[in-house]
Amino acid sequence: MTTKELLIKAKNAKSRLSSVSVEQIDNALCAMADALILNTDKILAENAKDIEKSRGTLSEVMIDRLSLSADRIKGMANGVRDVAKLPCPVGKVIKKIVREDGLVIEKTSVALGVVAIIYESRPNVTSDAAALAIKSGNVCVLRCGKEAHNSAAAIVDALQSGLEKAGLCKDFVLLVEDTTRESANEIMTADGYVDLLIPRGGKGLISACVNNATVPCIQTGTGICHIYVDESADIEMALNIVENAKTSRPSVCNAEEVLVVNKNIAKDFLPKLKERLVDSRCENPVELRLDEFAQKIIDGTPAKDEDFDTEFLDYILAVKVVDNVEKAIEHINAHSTGHSEAIITENSSSADKFTRSIDSSAVYVNASTRFTDGGEFGLGCEMGISTQKLHARGPMGLEELNTYKYIIKGTGQVR
Amino acid sequence: MTTKELLIKAKNAKSRLSSVSVEQIDNALCAMADALILNTDKILAENAKDIEKSRGTLSEVMIDRLSLSADRIKGMANGVRDVAKLPCPVGKVIKKIVREDGLVIEKTSVALGVVAIIYESRPNVTSDAAALAIKSGNVCVLRCGKEAHNSAAAIVDALQSGLEKAGLCKDFVLLVEDTTRESANEIMTADGYVDLLIPRGGKGLISACVNNATVPCIQTGTGICHIYVDESADIEMALNIVENAKTSRPSVCNAEEVLVVNKNIAKDFLPKLKERLVDSRCENPVELRLDEFAQKIIDGTPAKDEDFDTEFLDYILAVKVVDNVEKAIEHINAHSTGHSEAIITENSSSADKFTRSIDSSAVYVNASTRFTDGGEFGLGCEMGISTQKLHARGPMGLEELNTYKYIIKGTGQVR
Repeated sequence: MTTKELLIKAKNAKSRLSSVSVEQIDNALCAMADALILNTDKILAENAKDIEKSRGTLSEVMIDRLSLSADRIKGMANGVRDVAKLPCPVGKVIKKIVREDGLVIEKTSVALGVVAIIYESRPNVTSDAAALAIKSGNVCVLRCGKEAHNSAAAIVDALQSGLEKAGLCKDFVLLVEDTTRESANEIMTADGYVDLLIPRGGKGLISACVNNATVPCIQTGTGICHIYVDESADIEMALNIVENAKTSRPSVCNAEEVLVVNKNIAKDFLPKLKERLVDSRCENPVELRLDEFAQKIIDGTPAKDEDFDTEFLDYILAVKVVDNVEKAIEHINAHSTGHSEAIITENSSSADKFTRSIDSSAVYVNASTRFTDGGEFGLGCEMGISTQKLHARGPMGLEELNTYKYIIKGTGQVR
Repeated sequence: MTTKELLIKAKNAKSRLSSVSVEQIDNALCAMADALILNTDKILAENAKDIEKSRGTLSEVMIDRLSLSADRIKGMANGVRDVAKLPCPVGKVIKKIVREDGLVIEKTSVALGVVAIIYESRPNVTSDAAALAIKSGNVCVLRCGKEAHNSAAAIVDALQSGLEKAGLCKDFVLLVEDTTRESANEIMTADGYVDLLIPRGGKGLISACVNNATVPCIQTGTGICHIYVDESADIEMALNIVENAKTSRPSVCNAEEVLVVNKNIAKDFLPKLKERLVDSRCENPVELRLDEFAQKIIDGTPAKDEDFDTEFLDYILAVKVVDNVEKAIEHINAHSTGHSEAIITENSSSADKFTRSIDSSAVYVNASTRFTDGGEFGLGCEMGISTQKLHARGPMGLEELNTYKYIIKGTGQVR
């Protein structure tokens, strides 16, 4: 099937999906989860092919990301079941106006239509994205990177068999066969066919989508997250939060990349920071990349300008010393990707200034940036984290995969 | 001032505006309204220059759109005062989650930052757009067409003097001096400076913005609105609604352009339609452009294919006959611009099918499409009507000029 044919199929499936009841969708999601378990052997066999192909070309970390096991497939199935349990976002009356002339205006949440996801080598994205799209009433078009394509095809086969078992159309989840750049470009420019494109992957993929897409696209993921340690910070709290945000999982987008420190606390704080992040860590000590001021206080790598604009995704932390909270805000708004930033302070006026002026999706006071996540924010799930301001900002759950329309019922009213 | 310098000014003004209180903003809006009245003579003198320049090149209708009078300026001032009375959308806690670990997560509405409006020759857009942007906490960058530039400059001078009188920064409203295409392109690609671009004007302007903008942009305005008269329609109601939607103000985007009629009612309905829209109208009879089936029943212009994809904005109505509601939905979803569509029916199952399946911002049952308007929908005002699905759909009021951020307050929580 060509990508064009697949997009036509997806468009045609939209109206069929819009007449399926919530119960049918939830049943189908459970059947899809069962089908994943049932097809474990087949999925693992296809996954083995992907891994075999990638040996030598992909790093060990990437191979690990690509690898499935019976347990991981079980995890994927449980993920799909969890989505089935979430409330359905479609059809909610967001606002209702009854006019004096009797016209009833209901602002009602509706599915977007066709949601396309372009992703890289994590096979579990296949079932995650499909479940979220279907639960929110959307047809799902998946375009997986070539490294994981055999795995994704086996997973989609299983999901489709689940849909059919539940009496629904298997075209509600479609996998693009072509894994060349051509198919990605076709999806990005499929005006009238794709209602929302979500890129999930590295910086290169995301900027290719944002720059080339003519279909509506949401910029996700890249996180150059900052933590600012204010003059009045509780030092022990600051050390705990900085260590957690930097080291608990450095490869994720809500990890800290830049530490900003108030000048008046730097002499006291920085040596303790070095002790905590470098000297006392047997495994994975953090490389500190220091600005000139910090270099006078502790040892570390001298920071280059680009270190303050880099998503390291590694045990590396850029450190900058500033005069006050205003200078911290200025630096962060100039260098952040709009994802998550935190201030550590006991001063409520600094906290207010920071939360009001920082232009990011999540702004923390005295907590780790690592909480920016659909699950942690109570959305129950997550399709990605938007770093743009229109439509959705921050973690995208089911509601963010909907739009609304006004449904107006009258008895002949004219204007 | 170059456009680049102006954009830098706007960006710098953002944080100043974010610390202004609701009361200060409302006071400033009132001072801006007063300043419009105070400067009536100056504005009229500049407007006279615009009109003088345009004689011979612009049509009478366009000259009328461009023309101001003391009364029209009073209307503009009242518009600004009305916006001051609306509730402030900024700072609302949309959702609040208190986690078991004590972390408090507040999803809070915030201004977008800098809202740019590129518009054509209607001088009143200047004060409308400025008032809406400021009330919603946004700095306003205006780029007016060259025909109305003298008028716009005089209006912005007045608005800025009002801002200053109220003790606020005059950079909250800025008018781009350059009226060449160059300045429009600069705004469309001012990444990092413009948080939202709204084009207000004709199809050419809107598609230029949508196609060339790299900044976030909302597609507004174009309306190929359909009314479907179902088999079970109340004929008298259908005639009233079609006449109203077509003729009450044909130049606006919520006017009807295409009439879709059920085959089983066509023989009865179409002659009455012709009587109502053509024969009995002394002024402005409607030109009916008929598909083949309709031509067999009444006289009219044979419709060409493109008549079903044209926003006439005139006393012209394309007429298509279809077999049933499903075929009507199919035609409309294929040809509509996603603005407003209506069904006239006494059959609730047809009505349900129509409202569920039509993929437009406003879907009506038994009412005129002319109601799609911020004021009529209870938003109190309107910055334009979005025909896209992301962020805002349908009339955009103050809330639609906001985004949100998550503000998270903790006591040292880590993950």
